[in-house]
Parts: sequence; structure tokens; C-alpha cells
Amino acid sequence: MTLSECAAWLREHDRFLILTHRRPDGDAAGCSAALCRGLRQLGKTAFTLPNPEAAGRNAEMPAPYAAPEGFAPETVVSVDLADEGILQLNAGAWAGKVDLCIDHHPSNSGYAARGLVDPEAGACGELVYFLLRELLGEIDRETATLLYIAVTTDTGCFRYKNTTPQTLRVGADLLEAGAPVDLNRSLFMKKSRSRLLLESTIIAGLEFFMEGEASMACVTKADLARCGVTEGDLEDVASIAGGVEGVELSVTIREVGDEEWKVSLRTGQYGNASLICREFGGGGHGMAAGCTLYGPLPEVKARLKDAVARYWHEAPLTK
Amino acid sequence: MTLSECAAWLREHDRFLILTHRRPDGDAAGCSAALCRGLRQLGKTAFTLPNPEAAGRNAEMPAPYAAPEGFAPETVVSVDLADEGILQLNAGAWAGKVDLCIDHHPSNSGYAARGLVDPEAGACGELVYFLLRELLGEIDRETATLLYIAVTTDTGCFRYKNTTPQTLRVGADLLEAGAPVDLNRSLFMKKSRSRLLLESTIIAGLEFFMEGEASMACVTKADLARCGVTEGDLEDVASIAGGVEGVELSVTIREVGDEEWKVSLRTGQYGNASLICREFGGGGHGMAAGCTLYGPLPEVKARLKDAVARYWHEAPLTK
Repeated sequence: MTLSECAAWLREHDRFLILTHRRPDGDAAGCSAALCRGLRQLGKTAFTLPNPEAAGRNAEMPAPYAAPEGFAPETVVSVDLADEGILQLNAGAWAGKVDLCIDHHPSNSGYAARGLVDPEAGACGELVYFLLRELLGEIDRETATLLYIAVTTDTGCFRYKNTTPQTLRVGADLLEAGAPVDLNRSLFMKKSRSRLLLESTIIAGLEFFMEGEASMACVTKADLARCGVTEGDLEDVASIAGGVEGVELSVTIREVGDEEWKVSLRTGQYGNASLICREFGGGGHGMAAGCTLYGPLPEVKARLKDAVARYWHEAPLTK
Repeated sequence: MTLSECAAWLREHDRFLILTHRRPDGDAAGCSAALCRGLRQLGKTAFTLPNPEAAGRNAEMPAPYAAPEGFAPETVVSVDLADEGILQLNAGAWAGKVDLCIDHHPSNSGYAARGLVDPEAGACGELVYFLLRELLGEIDRETATLLYIAVTTDTGCFRYKNTTPQTLRVGADLLEAGAPVDLNRSLFMKKSRSRLLLESTIIAGLEFFMEGEASMACVTKADLARCGVTEGDLEDVASIAGGVEGVELSVTIREVGDEEWKVSLRTGQYGNASLICREFGGGGHGMAAGCTLYGPLPEVKARLKDAVARYWHEAPLTK
């Protein structure tokens, strides 16, 4: 679907329910709320389906648009959802019944009846921005703020590789439409005390191997307790070990049960995270993958280091 | 001077020497190199004056344009230099003789014969970008990369408050002109091991006061040695203590001699850093200021906490 086809289709429909993925991030929550708000400004009845796993800001943004019990939609729209396998937990009833998906994942599985899908977009928020501009002419300050959170979340405030000229131009438009640039300060430059303590603990305990180009972090339950870590503090915890200059592959091991370890791999230049994790029954992408290992920690570490070494050059990075 | 007046003036002149400020950052170094490169592409003779305090990337960028011994310029241009008091250390001979300054500091003291000064620009790189577009029509990949470093350095990769719609649009243009978005990864998402250890040490040792809205960090010489800190690791070290959620004012105390402490203040919502530091013989801006205190550490801390409390509400933030 083109942008204008999608806009025309939305104009022709009503009674919208907007869904997104599990563990919603700023892009999912911001897009849900902004699209819902825009549809209402168009005179439509529109709600977002409350997401049971949403926390903090990602719960607050769509809260004013939450569907009441028993709302019977005529039109189901998903945002930022690559596949129905990761549909938000309470949306099972809508699997196979999504009328329109708006998404930017290259891996979008085509589950919806129709889609506005652009894998070049750094954030789903870019697509929702263009769509609302098409539908409404201009967007208000509140919508601009929701979409600024969406776009900056998915691009690490324009730092990640997925940032394109379009991303930056959408950001410029959103600031002009009233999104407060101060948001960046709270979103990207402030962290909770417990998160900072956790980061300190991880950094202080990092092990390096592969001549310093690989790092291994270990987080025990005792560490989490000592730092006072809550669920929100664990977001993207696997990226910490890879933040060291010269490190091209990082392994983060987190204790989740008795001799049970959740492992996350992140790669830069070397190794294929997906292949390594598949060896232990896990999976993911070439640059980010995960698996679960069982056994005493020293043994788990040794097995992981061995696998990393074996795949270091054999498996070049693929997306 | 308007942009086109400045461009016309540059076209009429030749034999350029480009200067900047002490301890050059990415904006100073990137602008120096980009302007010099652009002037050469225009057929001019142009050099940058090697900056004795430049380190790492900020030394490498202007290196290909370094003026040879004894170069006798006809035209002296400064970039990103607010005042001759902070002229790079070997440029004293040119004080009072700057023909043109290109700058974005609101505090620009008007030291140059003429200026292209826009305090609204988030980075001096934005001004150099528009100037080179005016002079050359388009800029090449190398120039785009230099200016992308300039713009992202001064705006924390589009995170700081000084980021404007124009900043983001210039960023978009520079990516389109070939600046690699990967730069962000090395510039903003990787830190040296020693820097990370220093950050860990600071975070672990933070003291909070003013009901958690103020933080105090202390870095001793022993800490620096233990973390293996080099000069480059100390860049913006005063911002670390302010990175905690809820903290609106932070004090960073660094041991520089026997009972001699370099103090940096950063403020958000409360307090006026400049007023507080002035009390101890220092100075700066409302949001960032410094001073030096002498005496035993506990006493120094107590004096600072007392001053912060006294100015907490009395001195609202001024720029």
C-alpha cells in the first residue's frame, strides 16, 4: 500500500482498535497513541488495546486512548508489529484478523490483510508521521511529542545505524510542531540510580577475550538485588558490555534460576550472534541473539567462549 | 555579516590561516578542517594553525591542512571562538588581528573585524555547512564527515537542548552528502575501558543531598590511577554525577593537588552554578561553572553543600 492508499483506506473505515507488540517500547507506544489521537481528530472512533506488559512512559502514552471493556471494533490496525507471534499478550483474539499493519521491520511476515510497510524507515514513528500529515495536514504538539518519542526511541536519539536523512528530517518537523527538545534529556541522558549501579557492576566485572575484541558480562541475582534493580532497569542491558572501545562482540550472562543462565549476544564486525546462539538452542539476528544455558557458571562461560572463538571468522555478519 | 556577504568576502580574499579555541573539541576541529578544505576547493591557499592541545580525532581532522612553519597569511579566520581570551595557545600573535570570525556562541565578544555569528545555531558546523554550500554548491563526502562530527559533537548527537530543527536538517543533508552514520557508534556509543571504570567509580561513590535532587561526586588521584585514566577520559567528566534521574544539580570534586580540589557544578532546574562558584572565586555560566577549593575533603564538601543549599531557590537559572 502506498501512503495515500493507506490514508484513503483509513478515511473509509471506522471503529478502530490499535494493537502492537509484546513488551512495548517507545516506538510501539508512541505510534499507538499518536495514530489513535490522529484518527479521533479525523472524527473516528478509535482506541488502543491496553498492553499488559507496558511500563512507565510506554504505559502512560496510550493510557488516554485505552479501549473500554467490551469495545467491538470494526477495524483492527497494528503498529510496529513484525509478526503475530509477538502480538501483545491480550490480543490473541485478533490474530489472523488484523486489517492493516503499519510497520518498518524488514522481517514483517505479511500477517495483515494490507500493510504500510517500509523497511527503510528507522522507526515506525516516521510512517505514522507521514500518514497523519497526509490525513490531517498538520499535527499538534501532543502528537508531535508522541512521535518524537517513537522516533528517538528506535534510533537511540539519532545515534543508531538505522538513522537516515529522513529520520532526521522527521525529527526536525516534529520539533517544529512543538515536540520539546528537553525530552532528550530525560529519555537519553538520565538513568535511574539502580540502573547506573547495575551498569557500574557490569563494567567493573567485565572479562575480555579474543585479544580484547570480545567482552563477557555476568549479572547474578545477588547483583540485581544489591543494585535495587527493577524490570525497567534491565532494558537493553545486553548492550552495556559492548560499549567498550575495541569490543566487537559481547556476551551478557544473566542468572535467571538455579544454574540457569539467560545469554544475550551482540556483535559488531565479527561473529554471527544467531549462529552461536542456535548452537545452544536459541536464536535471533546476526547482530543480536539469545539463548539459555544450564550448569555451573565457569562451565557456561567456557562453552560460550569456545563457541564465540569457533564462529569468529567463519560466520561473517549478516543482517 | 549575512551568509552571502561572508561568502563574497571569502571569495575576494586569499592566503587563509584558520584558528580556533584552546582544548579544541569536535566542533572546533571539524569546522577548521572543513572550512580549510572548502577554501582549497575554491582554489585558495588555506591552512589551519596546528593546535598544541588537540588530541585524538581532534588532532587528526585538521592534520592534513596544517600550516607549514613560517606561513605568512593574508587573511586570518577563527571558527568556534567566542573570545580571544581562549585563543589556541600558539595563536597569541594573531590576537587583535582576526579578520573574520565564524561562531555560534551567544557570548561572542566581537573581537574580530567582521563576523558570521549566529547564536541560534546548535553548532558552529551548521554555519560552516551553509557557508560551504553557498561557496561550492555542494560538499563532498570528506567535508560532510568533518561537519557531521562538528555538529554531532556540539549537540551530543542531537540530544542536547541546543538541537534545533535546523541542526537536524543539516544532519540529514550531511548524511546524504556521504557522512557515515556509523560515526555515531564510535563517537557516542563506545567509551574506553578506563573511562567506563572511572564512570563506575563515580557512580558507586555518589552522595545525594537536597532530598536526592543534588548529587556530589569525588574523584581522587588514586581513583584516576586505579582506573588508568588519561587526559581524554576526563572530557565532560562533570556531567556524570548529573546523569541520575531526579538530580537537578551536581557537584564534581576532583583532587588536583595536596588538599587542592577542582570543583565543577552543573545545574538543571535549580540553583545557579555561576553564583555558587563565584562565592569561591570561580565563575562560569548559570548551568555550568567551576572553582577551586583548598582544605581537607570533608570540609570542602560541607562548604559546597552549604552554598548549594543557600542558592537552591534564591538564584533561579539564568543562561
